Formats: sequence, structure tokens, C-alpha cells
Amino acid sequence: MNFHPEVDTAVALAYDAAGSWAASDGACRAALLDGLAEALGSDRAALVALADSETHLGAARLNGELGRTIFQLRGFAEVVLEGVPYRTVIDEAVAGLPPAGHPAMALARVPLGPVAMFSASNFPFAFSVLGGDTSSALAAGCPVIVKGHPAHPRLSAAVAELARQVLVTQGLPEGLIGHVNQDSYESGIALVTHPVIQAVSFTGSLGGGKALAAAIQSRAQPIPFYGELGSVNPIVVMPKALEGKVNECAKVLAVSMTQGAGQFCTSPGLVVLLDSEPAKQLVDELGRQVDQIALHPMLSDRIQHGFEAGVSALSSSAEVQVKTARGAKEGATKGFVGVTTAFAFLNNEGLRHEVFGSSCLCIMASSVKEIAQVLRAIGGSLTVTLWGVDSESEENRLILRAAQNLAGRVLFKGVPTGVAVTRAQHHGGPWPSSTQPLFTSVGYAAIDRFLRPVVLQDAPDWVLDRKGIPV
Amino acid sequence: MNFHPEVDTAVALAYDAAGSWAASDGACRAALLDGLAEALGSDRAALVALADSETHLGAARLNGELGRTIFQLRGFAEVVLEGVPYRTVIDEAVAGLPPAGHPAMALARVPLGPVAMFSASNFPFAFSVLGGDTSSALAAGCPVIVKGHPAHPRLSAAVAELARQVLVTQGLPEGLIGHVNQDSYESGIALVTHPVIQAVSFTGSLGGGKALAAAIQSRAQPIPFYGELGSVNPIVVMPKALEGKVNECAKVLAVSMTQGAGQFCTSPGLVVLLDSEPAKQLVDELGRQVDQIALHPMLSDRIQHGFEAGVSALSSSAEVQVKTARGAKEGATKGFVGVTTAFAFLNNEGLRHEVFGSSCLCIMASSVKEIAQVLRAIGGSLTVTLWGVDSESEENRLILRAAQNLAGRVLFKGVPTGVAVTRAQHHGGPWPSSTQPLFTSVGYAAIDRFLRPVVLQDAPDWVLDRKGIPV
Repeated sequence: MNFHPEVDTAVALAYDAAGSWAASDGACRAALLDGLAEALGSDRAALVALADSETHLGAARLNGELGRTIFQLRGFAEVVLEGVPYRTVIDEAVAGLPPAGHPAMALARVPLGPVAMFSASNFPFAFSVLGGDTSSALAAGCPVIVKGHPAHPRLSAAVAELARQVLVTQGLPEGLIGHVNQDSYESGIALVTHPVIQAVSFTGSLGGGKALAAAIQSRAQPIPFYGELGSVNPIVVMPKALEGKVNECAKVLAVSMTQGAGQFCTSPGLVVLLDSEPAKQLVDELGRQVDQIALHPMLSDRIQHGFEAGVSALSSSAEVQVKTARGAKEGATKGFVGVTTAFAFLNNEGLRHEVFGSSCLCIMASSVKEIAQVLRAIGGSLTVTLWGVDSESEENRLILRAAQNLAGRVLFKGVPTGVAVTRAQHHGGPWPSSTQPLFTSVGYAAIDRFLRPVVLQDAPDWVLDRKGIPV
Repeated sequence: MNFHPEVDTAVALAYDAAGSWAASDGACRAALLDGLAEALGSDRAALVALADSETHLGAARLNGELGRTIFQLRGFAEVVLEGVPYRTVIDEAVAGLPPAGHPAMALARVPLGPVAMFSASNFPFAFSVLGGDTSSALAAGCPVIVKGHPAHPRLSAAVAELARQVLVTQGLPEGLIGHVNQDSYESGIALVTHPVIQAVSFTGSLGGGKALAAAIQSRAQPIPFYGELGSVNPIVVMPKALEGKVNECAKVLAVSMTQGAGQFCTSPGLVVLLDSEPAKQLVDELGRQVDQIALHPMLSDRIQHGFEAGVSALSSSAEVQVKTARGAKEGATKGFVGVTTAFAFLNNEGLRHEVFGSSCLCIMASSVKEIAQVLRAIGGSLTVTLWGVDSESEENRLILRAAQNLAGRVLFKGVPTGVAVTRAQHHGGPWPSSTQPLFTSVGYAAIDRFLRPVVLQDAPDWVLDRKGIPV
């Protein structure tokens, strides 16, 4: 165990708050979630200005993101009031010998306990202090200790202070929402290895996620680690989609890949095409469109350097033809589009690395079978988008099968950027897009990550009367 | 990647079988599960005789276990026919801007792909070739490669051959149920690190489970690991339970801890009591009862040596008073009962190790608070049993809270040995009792371990018409 005063204090407060919060009813939890939503809304202008000064993401985008964060808090409040965390499965006792006979069983769920949550650089509201991880963990009955992200430390502190005030106003323990703002590797490791912490959620880089996973695995008692570590989000463009729509497709792709300077977990980094004249036109047009879009500064120097190094590696590969006019001095102010063959992509591992930012590699395949091979060669992805597969055919089934084996979300229209907060949403796919691919980090099922089933066998009335609310 | 011919062949066959099985409907999967149940039933006498010759567990117990295994296969067939693996969550499209507006979303589930399953020594039927892991994975749509256990290799081979015949008869690919019977560490590592394998289930020792977890974590793409690595299954006996029932309680405990020579994952290894005259009588009587029970040989020399070493460590501790008459030469033919104080238990880590076999350590606590401390000092457990907490009180709430934070099943009557196969069952708690404490390995929810959610956004009719059956 690593000793770290700031972490230890926050964890001690979370520990003290955990018991009563686990035993709280839906009205109490919903009141907190609604109160947090209300507080964010009241301070909207100041928060957006502060966020923009630290992240350069722009007022329009940040207002939208804050709106989504408020919507999400209120949505989780509704889910809690409906009793989702308290749902039980009842098997009445059955007389007789096993295996048919059995005692009375009531399956309930208990909150895991204090959760460590790592804020994301690219979503200063929706995946940070009061974002989806915090709201789903609170809804589940778990205190949260937030590690603020060094790309927006003042915003983190401001939102944490707002949260503290709401807790005080509602007479709830301050330990329910802790905050550690230190920009140090050591504080993160101290947090996830603290024996009181019972789950960790993280949105960030593959390297950072692997380090946390190793630290968690080294604990005397390893715990669930919900990490989102990267995703290339391929878009497969079948010939049907291009019929008379080459320029339109190029425009949609250009906007999606440059949105927020490409700093979305669902930003499309690959476009897979069947080699053809319209496909070539699409790639040329995509390059031209991207050339016309100026990008705002990236979130941090580290992210910008990573983007430049990735683009530089692709540009200098003999197997990649560059389709944008950007030169070395453009840095991260211009997006990158290149094109290569499926053969090269399948045989050169270097082409398969994610480049976080406005970079898109187009892949020309010689057959539908080769498209499926390309999809199988990619690690897990949050999304795969399939354009032009509206009718059933053997080829479309082949592509859909490859897509569903690769991703947690398969889109048949539109672009993967923009992730709706709904009941059916699933944000997470096989490693590295998620370290726990059976769970989602967006949408109301995110609450399931923090609830552990416990079956109560032959429970007396005073336990059953609680209707799934833990003692 | 480790090259291993027998493993590679089985994996290649599973890979070839995976696509069509993932796309199979409920009738097809249920027919296989029922066919396997039928085949086991037809060969009952021969299988039980073979199992007894390899495991010494006795015909009565093995007949019961085989019955349970057949019941379980048929139960999963029913669950599949009801459509459980194909259940979808639908969010109709909502017009308007985000966050309230969103596209149409249909959440389905896809099978993970080929599963590696490690048979358990102590359940030659129910947790082996056609046991709960295999039946739930097949129900989910995943091929299974079974690693036979060296404690019953001939039975493993015989059951695998039965399964092969059922597959051939039904015209299904033999790769759906593969079998690797090699008694080697290397073959196990080769299996779990093979890139085609998409999930691993394991019931066995803490050391073996840790080695597999490390190998899986070292893969280029880590995958879900469902391991059950040990459990001490404390029974808390509150004074109410002992009123006029000391001898009765001792008898129930003695039978439970010596059943199958204590080789159950749910065998009670700790009894926690409030120090009192009746509690002392219980411990004395438990020792006397256990002394009168002769045990059948253990499953393997390795398990027997582990038991003897564990009992020897407890017997020689200055803090443990031995309550059974067993001497050194008894080996594993007699059970062990000892008693210590809660203070000693809390301060001596050596007393907290699981001893697999008929060993029970009784702990005398000086207060209810100390009982809760004892429970908190134990690693995760499959079960905690609470006797004498039938009415609500602050003390009983304190104990229940500690129990639910420790275990996946809390019993208020009876003993933890015997795990019903039902919908509400949950078999798995915090590490080390489960490496994935949000999932169960017994009961029909076990199927959820092998299904990964995928949301289909704006899917065309030919996809939605499949009603959750993957392409």
C-alpha cells in the first residue's frame, strides 16, 4: 500500500460515507442527483467559460456537453426512483429433494463500495467530476473519489466545490464525492491500490490504462477495473452508399473526424472501402474537405505530440498515399487523410495503431472478404459503422458478423461521434475499447458496473421487507 | 503465443464451429443441450462407476451430482427456448436535438466466441466436461474447449466421447465441445493465451487461478476470466440459535463440514460465535461429532497434502486449542476442529488461510462488533451463513451488512453446502471466491458471462427481423 495523505483523507471520508449511502432509498439518491444537476445548471455560464479557457473546445460544444451532463444526472435520478438498483429476482421455495427442490432465494444487489474515478481530458463535463461514471456510481449507492484531469484542474476544482455545497445543503456526508486534483502518477496508483477502493473507472490512454490494470491486479484483492483505453471506430463504406453521394459522404466524414479536433473516443480513424472509381473519388474529396477545416488547439501538449507523431509515422510510410495538403509546420491545426491497401494494412502492424486526433486512414480492399479480414485485424472498437448494407445478402451478413465481433455499437446510418444516453445504449467493446466488454460506460445500464448480486437464502421477513434496499 | 499441437487442433475446430453456432436459434441449441442430458442419463451406471473409481466420492453422491448435471442441461435448454440469450432492449428513435433526441437503438447480445473451460477436481460431473460452465456457454452460443482434470481423466474422456457422439448424431460440428486431457501446466497456458479463445472459466486453487489470470492479462488482447479460487464460508452462530439446540447445531455443522471429505467450495471452514457457555459447549460437541466420522480418501495426493499441511499449521499454533482427537497418523481420514479467539484471528494472518478439506476453525468473539470485524478481515467468500438473526436489531443489521459485503450468498438457515440451480442463484463473491464478482457460475444467470452486449443503431429491417439472433 502506498501512503499518500491527500488520497488517504479522501478515501477515509468515502469509507465513512459508504454504509449509510448503500442503505439509502431511491428518494434520497434521486434528490442528490437532481440537486447536482440543478447546481450545474445554475452556474452554467461561469463553468462553460472556465472549461473553454482550459480546453479550447469552444462554448457551443461545451454548452452541449454540460447540457448532456445535466440530462444524465436527471436520467439516473429517474432510474433510481423506478427502483432499478433495488430490483430483486425471487425464487419461491420448492419442496422436494434437489435438484428440483430448493430453499427460498431472493437475489438482490449491493453497491460495491467506494469507487475511484479518473476524469477524461476530452470530456471536461460528461466524463469528469459529475459525469457518467460519478452519476452511475452514486445512483448505484457507491461513494466516488474523482481524480481530476490535469488538462482542466480549475474546472475540476470548481465542479467539486459545487458538489460539496450540494452535499452540505442536503445534509449528506462530504465523503460521497471526493476529489483529488494532484497531477501525479503516484497519487493515481495510491488511489487504485487503496484497500478500501472497490472499483475503478478510467477513460484515457492505452498506456495509462495498462499501468492502472497492472497496479489493480497486484492488489491483495483485485477489484473490477472499468477502463476505456482507445478505439479506431472504422466506417465501412459499401458501393451502394456511394451511388450519387460521393461528395455528401465525404462531407459527413470530414465533419465527424475533425469535430473537437478529433478528440472523441468515437472519432472515425479508419474508412474501409471496396476499391473502385467512386471509392477513389471519396478519398480524394475527403482530403480536400479536411484541408479546408481549421482545427482548434488540442487539449494538451502531450496529446498534440502524440497526434503529430502518429500522423508523421503514417505520412512517411511507403505504403500510405497522403491525401491532405498539410505540411510539417501545420502541427495539429490541420487534419490528416491517407490511403493504403487492405494488403498493406493486414501485413503492417504499424498502420493499425490508433492516432488520437483528426487522422483518418482509408483502406482499399479488393473484395468483401478482405473487408472482413481488415475488421478482424483490428483490436476491439467502441463502434463500427456500416454504410450501404440496407438489404440482406451473404456479403452484408459477412460484414455485419465481423463488425459485431469487433465492437459494442454497430451503426447503419450516420457517424459514430455523438453517443446517446438511453436505456439500450452500449459504449464499450472488446479490449482495448473496454477492459470489461460486458458493461457499458454510457447509458443507464452503466449503473450495473457498481452493483454486485447477493442472493439471500431463506431470509427472514425483516430482510425481505427492505425490498432490495441493502441494510 | 505458445505452440501446442493438441490445443491448437481443438481451438481450430472451435473457431470453425463458432460462426454457425453463434447464429443458431433456440430450438437448435436446446436440442443439443437436451441431447447431452439424454446421453448422460442413458450411461448413468457406467459413468458413476467410472467416476467413483477415480474420485472415491461414493455412488450416492455421484448419482446425485449426475442428476443435477442432467437437470442443469435441461434447465439451460428451457432458458434458451424462452429466448434469454436473444433478449433485446429497444429504444425507439426520438426526434429532436440531443441529449433528449436520439436515433433508434436495439440492444442485443452476441456470444463471446470459443471458451476455455477448466474442469474441477471436486465435481467430476457438475463442474467438469458437461457441467455448468459448458452448458451455460453452449446456451449462450459459444463453443467450449474443456481441459479435463487430472483427478478424473478417464471419466473426462468418456464424457467427451459421449458428447462427440451427440454432436455427430445431430449433424453439428465436433468443434462445439472440444476436449484436452493433458495433465500439463503448459497446455493450460497455451489454451488461455490462444488468440482465438475469448473467455476462460476455472474452478480450482488460488495459485492455479493466479497463474491463469497473469497469463490472460499478458495477452495482446486480455479476455474475461471467470475464476473461482477459494472460499472459507463462515457460519455466524448468534446466541438465539443455540437456545436449547447446542447438540443439534453441532450435528448439522459436523455433517456439513465432513460431507465429501470437506471437498466442497462451500464447505464451512469457520464458525464465529459470541463467547459464552453454550458456545463453548457447541465447539466441544462439534469436535466430538467430527471425531466419530470417518472420511473417504481425498481426490488427489496434492489435495491431501494441502489439507494435512493446513491442519498441521493450525494444530501447532499456540493460539489454537484443538477440539478433535485426531493424531498425526490420521492423515486425511479424520476431520479437524479447533478454536481460537477473535483477537488472535484478527492479528494472525496465518489463521485466515483456507484449508481445503474437513477443517473448521471456531472463533470466539467478545462482542457483536468483533464478529463484524472478523467478517471484514476475511477475503471474499462464496457464502456467509447467519444463524439466529431472525428479528431486526441494530446488532443483526451490523452482521448482515458485514456478511453482504463479503459474500455472494447469505443464508439464514441450513448450511452452505448444496447450491440450488435456479434463476435467483448467485455463486460468486469478492476475490478470491470469484475473479468476476458481478457474475455467477451456478444458476441460469451463468449464461450472462458469455454474452456481450452490442447495440444496433438505426438497423435495417433485415437485421431487426432476426429478433436478437446474431447473424
